[in-house]
Amino acid sequence: MNLKSKDLLGLRDISAEEIEYILNTAKTMKCIVTSNNKKTAHLQGKSIITLFYENSTRTRLSFELASKYMGASAANISASSSSVQKGETLIDTGKTIDAMGSDIIIMRHPMSGAPHLLAKNVKSSIINAGDGMNEHPTQALLDMFTIQEKKGTLKGLKVAIIGDVLHSRVARSNIWGLTKMGAEVNVSGPATLMPPEIEKMGVNVFSTVQEAMLDADVVMGLRIQLERQKKGLFPTIREYARFFGVDDKRLKLAKEDAIVLHPGPVNRGVELSTSVTDGQQSCINEQVTNGVAVRMALLYLLTRRGTANEVTD
Amino acid sequence: MNLKSKDLLGLRDISAEEIEYILNTAKTMKCIVTSNNKKTAHLQGKSIITLFYENSTRTRLSFELASKYMGASAANISASSSSVQKGETLIDTGKTIDAMGSDIIIMRHPMSGAPHLLAKNVKSSIINAGDGMNEHPTQALLDMFTIQEKKGTLKGLKVAIIGDVLHSRVARSNIWGLTKMGAEVNVSGPATLMPPEIEKMGVNVFSTVQEAMLDADVVMGLRIQLERQKKGLFPTIREYARFFGVDDKRLKLAKEDAIVLHPGPVNRGVELSTSVTDGQQSCINEQVTNGVAVRMALLYLLTRRGTANEVTD
Amino acid sequence: MNLKSKDLLGLRDISAEEIEYILNTAKTMKCIVTSNNKKTAHLQGKSIITLFYENSTRTRLSFELASKYMGASAANISASSSSVQKGETLIDTGKTIDAMGSDIIIMRHPMSGAPHLLAKNVKSSIINAGDGMNEHPTQALLDMFTIQEKKGTLKGLKVAIIGDVLHSRVARSNIWGLTKMGAEVNVSGPATLMPPEIEKMGVNVFSTVQEAMLDADVVMGLRIQLERQKKGLFPTIREYARFFGVDDKRLKLAKEDAIVLHPGPVNRGVELSTSVTDGQQSCINEQVTNGVAVRMALLYLLTRRGTANEVTD
Repeated sequence: MNLKSKDLLGLRDISAEEIEYILNTAKTMKCIVTSNNKKTAHLQGKSIITLFYENSTRTRLSFELASKYMGASAANISASSSSVQKGETLIDTGKTIDAMGSDIIIMRHPMSGAPHLLAKNVKSSIINAGDGMNEHPTQALLDMFTIQEKKGTLKGLKVAIIGDVLHSRVARSNIWGLTKMGAEVNVSGPATLMPPEIEKMGVNVFSTVQEAMLDADVVMGLRIQLERQKKGLFPTIREYARFFGVDDKRLKLAKEDAIVLHPGPVNRGVELSTSVTDGQQSCINEQVTNGVAVRMALLYLLTRRGTANEVTD
Repeated sequence: MNLKSKDLLGLRDISAEEIEYILNTAKTMKCIVTSNNKKTAHLQGKSIITLFYENSTRTRLSFELASKYMGASAANISASSSSVQKGETLIDTGKTIDAMGSDIIIMRHPMSGAPHLLAKNVKSSIINAGDGMNEHPTQALLDMFTIQEKKGTLKGLKVAIIGDVLHSRVARSNIWGLTKMGAEVNVSGPATLMPPEIEKMGVNVFSTVQEAMLDADVVMGLRIQLERQKKGLFPTIREYARFFGVDDKRLKLAKEDAIVLHPGPVNRGVELSTSVTDGQQSCINEQVTNGVAVRMALLYLLTRRGTANEVTD
Repeated sequence: MNLKSKDLLGLRDISAEEIEYILNTAKTMKCIVTSNNKKTAHLQGKSIITLFYENSTRTRLSFELASKYMGASAANISASSSSVQKGETLIDTGKTIDAMGSDIIIMRHPMSGAPHLLAKNVKSSIINAGDGMNEHPTQALLDMFTIQEKKGTLKGLKVAIIGDVLHSRVARSNIWGLTKMGAEVNVSGPATLMPPEIEKMGVNVFSTVQEAMLDADVVMGLRIQLERQKKGLFPTIREYARFFGVDDKRLKLAKEDAIVLHPGPVNRGVELSTSVTDGQQSCINEQVTNGVAVRMALLYLLTRRGTANEVTD
């Protein structure tokens, strides 16, 4: 099997079979990340560039290590030092990187749709590492990998996503992916941070965190992006924590063996209490490991498109 | 054959034979850049450092990828985070990098002659990646490689260089290199941006872009460095575009099969019209690929000085 | 033999035998740094992250090259672009890096004890690359390596450390290490820059540089950290140079074959005169080479803990 598109722009546009295929490949990759010898030749002779127009140490580092573990030539471009400052267009930047022999460009951009624009204009595969308020598909893939690993399947599970859904590309990608894989998705958050069209995405909307979490198999906190909200529109941090923060008491509403996810970094005491963040049900650190595995799988599969090879080592 | 100097500081000081040798080696390297497997062992065990006192994503990335494709240990130093801020002298910085085992230091600096000063004081080979208004030899080498690839030779060709010649190290390196290789060079640009001594470099100076481009085999636009010009000395952008911008109509003055070059990034609608930039005669993206190839050739040849090896794989 | 701790946090807490072991291993590594082929497989499949909360080109580059020469996957995180800006705790940052498969995290931090906190909370080995005014153990190890190489032994030598001892983590680490290895340590510097408890560290304190340097085998200048001192507390630069600067005349007070060390970059004419900095007795550039060798040794030994392997190639 092969991925159909040369790019991964979002989970909205790929099939359940492709998601399954990526998650299965990531199982092999996880063995590498957690082993004593993290060097493979899966990407030998390939060139992987991160092109980040927003700061991100976590996601950038995760992709950089995924590339390096598999033997690629990897380089980073951050907007602050890039030709963008010289007024170059996004497409010209992309074509320049392309012409240097890049196989994959991993892109983060504050504008929704920017990776889609680039994808149409370059030969390299584009991986969307977060575009505006649209999608962050590799985060959702690692969340789904984590759930599947812990629960055995995604099908029929109840996943509660709590927080600032409006500004969250993580939530959007998870909703597309999870519903496609047969999970039921509940969302809850402050009314001011809930997109009006949200029901149309096939989720259940609840005004209280308690209802959304009832009997959930998975509780996913979203990061409050303080820098994004305009003043006055938003409950204060204290109000947020009081009404939507996940603490031990609220977590008891979910199933006894429910797992807790968060894209990190957690604002401790806001989205999750410290005891939930560090508790037995939390999979937050394992999500990070799975992120490297999922990105390795994706990099590998995108560079192997058009060939019949499967993962063999 | 071997390069005579341990350094590449400019095209003024190297011979036509050496230029020919670098361009020939770059042909092999281009096969690697454009292949499915960009990993070689040409620089295995070598250490290549970029030391940039001016921002540049393109040139830095081109060198970084050239180094990595050939298996070198590559690291980047940018002035903003360097010890320079602690008041270290340039020579002390160079000696420190040298002592860490570097084989080649690739240097960009706002002052003309800075790489020459460093070259005299370190064991590492120095490659000038742009020094003030002096030279940018690897850019000229990639331009010459592109011309030679398209036209079969440099000898006897007419090359029109249009724009801000005064501030352009790209123009200076091209003039030294192209005249050495037997090409005829025409230059044209605003009178305020034309160096007074320019005829002494063996070029033909024209006051109109039309005269300079007449029957040219190659039209090279120079980037307008807005940040460099002082206010008032310069025609406005609109005036520049009107009098010196290369558009379809003006391009017809050149030979029918003339090619268009630009060091990038293009200010679209200023130096070149969008239709010229993206047109059939434009080689701008191919220049970028050739840049990686030429830099690979140069890195390889400088590290192999004193041995009898030629490129063998 | 193996290092006892998974971390290197300072020289205060490791034994003379361990120091000896690191220095011996560094001898082999120095052969690699100074060879024509700096590529080994000592760290193949290992992941090394630099995490710097203070700018440092020298130390960061030294570790980065040490990692790359030995085939590790190496990546850099600098505080300015890190999640720290998003309010993440140091421990959460460390756990995230850990979860991505890092084997060693090399950390510099403005607060004394920060690496110790991290070390207790992550699986990765932590190397302290400088913490506040506490320790900078790899700098002291490279100083000791240089002395041992030049003098054959550390035991019984007289080492004069001159300058701002109060703010110097380099001085602290050297004092712990040198006294442990049987050297006698003299210190001298402005009274305002001498820690009150300094005699308790087992050193001889002198109010004049002349007394401290008398018959010394090693003279070590400390860098004046102008950015650290508060105004008014400190002699002016001129006064410092006059009373504590090491020049040719003062250097004659030391033994005839005394060597001069400095962690770099030297403020020429302040801590050391230019003729001393560049003189025959200066080992400043060799210290840099030895720094890479010592760091290679340390990275290798920390990743090989629990196995019986010694350096074999």
